[in-house]
Parts: sequence; C-alpha cells; structure tokens
Amino acid sequence: MKTRKIVIDGMGGDNAPGAIVEGAILAAGSVPHRICIVGDEAAISAELAKHRYSGDSIEIVHADEAISGDEAPVKAVRTKQRSSIVMGINMLKRGEGDVFISAGSTGALMAGGLFILGRIQGIDRPALASTYPIMQTGGVSLLVDSGANSECKPNNLLEFATMGAIYMEKVIGVKRPTVGLVNMGTEEGKGTTVLKAAYEMMARSRDEYGALEFIGNIEARDVPRGAADVIVCDGYVGNVILKLTEGLAWSIFKLIKKKFTDGALPRIGALLLSGKINELRGAFDYSEYGGAPILGVKGAIVKMHGASNANAAKNTIIKAVPYMEQEVVRHIENSVLEMEAVQISE
Amino acid sequence: MKTRKIVIDGMGGDNAPGAIVEGAILAAGSVPHRICIVGDEAAISAELAKHRYSGDSIEIVHADEAISGDEAPVKAVRTKQRSSIVMGINMLKRGEGDVFISAGSTGALMAGGLFILGRIQGIDRPALASTYPIMQTGGVSLLVDSGANSECKPNNLLEFATMGAIYMEKVIGVKRPTVGLVNMGTEEGKGTTVLKAAYEMMARSRDEYGALEFIGNIEARDVPRGAADVIVCDGYVGNVILKLTEGLAWSIFKLIKKKFTDGALPRIGALLLSGKINELRGAFDYSEYGGAPILGVKGAIVKMHGASNANAAKNTIIKAVPYMEQEVVRHIENSVLEMEAVQISE
Repeated sequence: MKTRKIVIDGMGGDNAPGAIVEGAILAAGSVPHRICIVGDEAAISAELAKHRYSGDSIEIVHADEAISGDEAPVKAVRTKQRSSIVMGINMLKRGEGDVFISAGSTGALMAGGLFILGRIQGIDRPALASTYPIMQTGGVSLLVDSGANSECKPNNLLEFATMGAIYMEKVIGVKRPTVGLVNMGTEEGKGTTVLKAAYEMMARSRDEYGALEFIGNIEARDVPRGAADVIVCDGYVGNVILKLTEGLAWSIFKLIKKKFTDGALPRIGALLLSGKINELRGAFDYSEYGGAPILGVKGAIVKMHGASNANAAKNTIIKAVPYMEQEVVRHIENSVLEMEAVQISE
Repeated sequence: MKTRKIVIDGMGGDNAPGAIVEGAILAAGSVPHRICIVGDEAAISAELAKHRYSGDSIEIVHADEAISGDEAPVKAVRTKQRSSIVMGINMLKRGEGDVFISAGSTGALMAGGLFILGRIQGIDRPALASTYPIMQTGGVSLLVDSGANSECKPNNLLEFATMGAIYMEKVIGVKRPTVGLVNMGTEEGKGTTVLKAAYEMMARSRDEYGALEFIGNIEARDVPRGAADVIVCDGYVGNVILKLTEGLAWSIFKLIKKKFTDGALPRIGALLLSGKINELRGAFDYSEYGGAPILGVKGAIVKMHGASNANAAKNTIIKAVPYMEQEVVRHIENSVLEMEAVQISE
C-alpha cells in the first residue's frame, strides 16, 4: 500500500495546538500514513515534548501565522500566504499531502479550497458535508450542504446529492446510499420553486440514468431516525439542522440531569444514571465523528468542529484515511458528465 | 365582560370528532364563553351524549362536508362551501364567532383566511405562528413563520416579527418581547440577501421607531434555550425547526427508555424513571401547547396539531381566549403604518 501524508492544521480551533498535537499522537499508532502538523513550530514541538512523543511518523511544517475565525475569509486567504491553512492547502496542491484537516474557519477553508485547489470541472458550488448521528442505529447520515452555500440553485442541490452519495459509498461504506431532499412535506410538488426543480432533476437522475438512489422529499422530523443516507438541502437549512440538533440535544440532556438528580430518586439510582446519560450524550458527541469534508474542490479537505478536543482530532485523522485512499475527488470528476446530462434533459 | 363565541372545527385532525368534542366539554367549565362545534351534527351529538354532556355552553352548527388533508387547499375552499372549515371561517366573517380553531389542513385554513376574511390591509403575507417550548424555563417562544410561506421577501420577515411580537405581548403576556432572526451566525451581515435586508429593516424598526425589541441574528443552536421570544424565519426553515425538534425529541426519549431499561438498572430504578421520562416528554407534548395562530388575516384563526387529542383541544380552546379578548387583529392593523415607514426609509 502506498504511504500517504495526512496534513493537519496545528493552529485551528479553540483548543489548538494542544488538542491537535495530542490527537495526532493518539492517531499515529493506528494510521499507516505519515502525519504532518502545520503551524508554529516551537509551540507544536513543545506539545510533542509534553507528551514525550519520540516516534517518526509525525513531522512539523512551520507556518508563521494563523487565520482566525473573525477574519474575512477571502481576504485572509489572499493575504496570509504563510498561514497554516494556506500552507496546508498548498501542500495538497503540490502533491506533498493527500488530505488537509483543520478545526479553523470554515470560510477560510472553503476559500482556500476554491482559490488554491480550484473547483472540480463541472461542479458549480463545492459544499460542506457533515455526518449526522442516527441514535437508533449507531450509524450516520450525511448532511449536504451543511453550511457553505446559503443560496442554492436546483443544479447545486443535484451536485450535493451526487457528491454526497459518492462520499457515503466510498468513505462511509454504504452500498447505494439513499438520497432524500429536505422539504415541507413528502409529496412531490412541495416547496419552493428551487426545491421543485431539484426534485425533478434528482428523479431524472434516478429514472433515466440509474444514478441516484433518490427516495424523494423527506421531512425534518424524519432526519434523526435516518430517513435517508444522504440528506440534501441548502446550506442555510443544513446549518439550522446541524445547530438545532446540537442545541436541542444539549437542552434535553441538561434537563434529564436536573430531573434525575432532583431529590426523588435514590442516590444509588442517580449514580447509575449519570453513566447512562454520558453514554447517551456520547451519541451526540462531535468528538466521536470524523469531521466534515468539503466536497467539490480538487483535493481532500476536512473541517473539524471548532471546539474539537484531542479525541475529536484523533478520530478525524483516522476517518480521513478512507477519504484519501478511495479517491473521492476522481469519482466526483467521473460523475460530472452524468449530472450535466440530467440538467440538459429538462 | 362581553361573552364571545369560540368556534371549533369538529371534523379536522386524526381524532375528530371524538377528541374535539371531548376537548370542548373539558374546556367548557373553565372558559366564560360559548363554544360552537361545526361539523356533522349526528356524529357530534353522539359524542356529546357519550360523555353525558347536558350543559348549555356548547352548541352545534351542522356542516355537510369536510376538507381532508390530501385535498388541494385553494380548490377545496373554493368548492366546498358547506365544509366545516369554510362554514367556521364564514361565521367569523359574519361576526357570529370570535375565534375559529381547527386541527384540519393548514393550507385550507390559510386559504380560507385569505379568501373569506382577507388580509389585514398592509400585510403582504399572513403567517403561521407556533409556540416553541423552552424546557429550561417552562415558557415558550413564538416561531413565525412556522410553515405557511416557503419563499419570503425581507418585508415579509419584518411583518412576521411585528405580528409575532404583538401576539407574544398581548396573548402570551411577555412585556416587550425580544425578536431574533434565524441566521447562520450571529454577526450582522450574515446570510442570504433576503436575511441581510430583513436584518436592516428590523434594526431600523428598533433604532428609528422604537418598535421591535430586535436582538439581531440568532443561531438555530440557541432556539431551544429561548434565545428570543419571537423567532423569525421563512416558513421552510420554520417547518424544519418545528419538525426536527419533534423528531429529535422523540428519538432521544426512545433511546433514553431503551438505555434505562437495559438490564443494568435495578427494576425499582427503572420504575421511578419511567415517571421522570414521562414528565420530560410532557415538555414536548403538543397537547400542552395552545395551537398556532394564523397572523395577518382579518380574524382569529388557530391551527391545532393534526394529531391533537382531547387534552390538546381543551388547551387550545382555553388559550384562544386571550387571542380574541386582546383584539390582536386590531393591534396588527395599528402597526402597519410603522412597518411601511420602516420599508420606505431604506
């Protein structure tokens, strides 16, 4: 097997560089590839020393600066050539890395992907795809777009569906993943003009090309139970789905904890419970899931949650392996002609 | 105090007429107004007899037909003049009723409101406003629009905000309710062109007219903890928020039940728990909340959840009382000039 290189942004997110370096060390043992941390060399070396890391599968590439979440993404990417994000993505571009992972600014990662790597020919809008935990099964759905494109045309939604299905099949390992369009009802003909046209395109992709396993409209109510493997919507709605899930799960767990420690329950019961609640909370823990790929640019970029801890960094590194090994970019390139045919045949 | 008349659709929803009639009987004792049930007289009389109702505050108005959820709303309202929905809304129009409640088709209620009562002068798009339970406080936020208008212009969002704030203040009793716009981040300048323009209008309403207590953009993550009293968004996003909350809460409670009855916990603990879980579930129970008003038409229409049981019907009737007593329609009429000024001053 070819040894590849995983490049990770040492400066991105709330807990960098500590959590990133620790995550890289934790992952190094189980990943048969080299890991390169891009960022402030002194700070990263100090973290490696803190954990007494002495292996040779982690290397550092020094970056003078970092892009913060407050900066205007396009300007930051244009002007901060020595930032960890720009340098990391440039490594992909030059073939010195096979995947780039960052907990930094989503906007900067998207801008970097677009300006440095460029869009895959025929893809109008790259998208952010997030895994969504399905509690009942322990599996995941893929939510595309989960926040990159707030305004979409019908062909953008078709692209999200197609790219998401490829990722779900090649990386998550779901054979012929089902695709659902988030709408206000399940009947055909529901929703906005954009949703109606997107529905038609996806149905054509299924009926005339045997491409998408499109199951039609789905309601937001059915997302948590895994109504479709690939959940398609614009980035505004995707952001609402992701953030509301996070906020609501947090509210419910907080209330459970309060209710269950409110007097009535014997102390021993409360103790047993806190373990159970932590198990439940695990089902919603971002650190268990493997980051969000940016699909549609000519390279493998993965966005981690800004609050990622060492465990999240470790899991994201591990889950990035099939992303690069399966050559998702090439598969997306191969799907473009079919998508164009679907659009033309309207 | 003037005695008013509450008109309720006896034929709408999954559990009609049984649950509606039982709910009316349960409410009759605590509501100082007459209740009129519109629908199949024989079926409604039979239900009243089943509960041995012998009071005189409930009356029946016979309707020959009903509009089902599958029918195209506009056509159904145009052609089914003897349906419970059309007859009920006509009673409002003629001053024979002060509020109309139905668990039937949202589309038909909206169409009926528009065609029979008409829009309030100056309101471009009536909206569906749903109460959203805030678990931590036991209070509610108001979500406008929660599903009536999938495509919105900036002025529609301003209208939703203004009408929602009036309802929240007059009916729910929140003094100077805060208004938040659902967006992909809290910073000004986020989101689609529509969201940006709506933000500006609401800020102007606050700064130049002292009208809205606008607190800016809010993220979906903060909706469950009650980030704002009035949550403003288009009907597509509102539908996603409402339905996802329902589906996710259901999934979590199901998982809790499973986890907590999985062997490890002593039987007595499990028994104690099931009470607690039911308490929690109550926080999300539609039957606890009082239906969704259609704001912006010239009359008080309230949509109940289609799955409403007797308890839901009872609560909706009780909570409809301040809606009619507070003359929300008149307050909305009075706010229109100010909204127009906000729009013109851009």
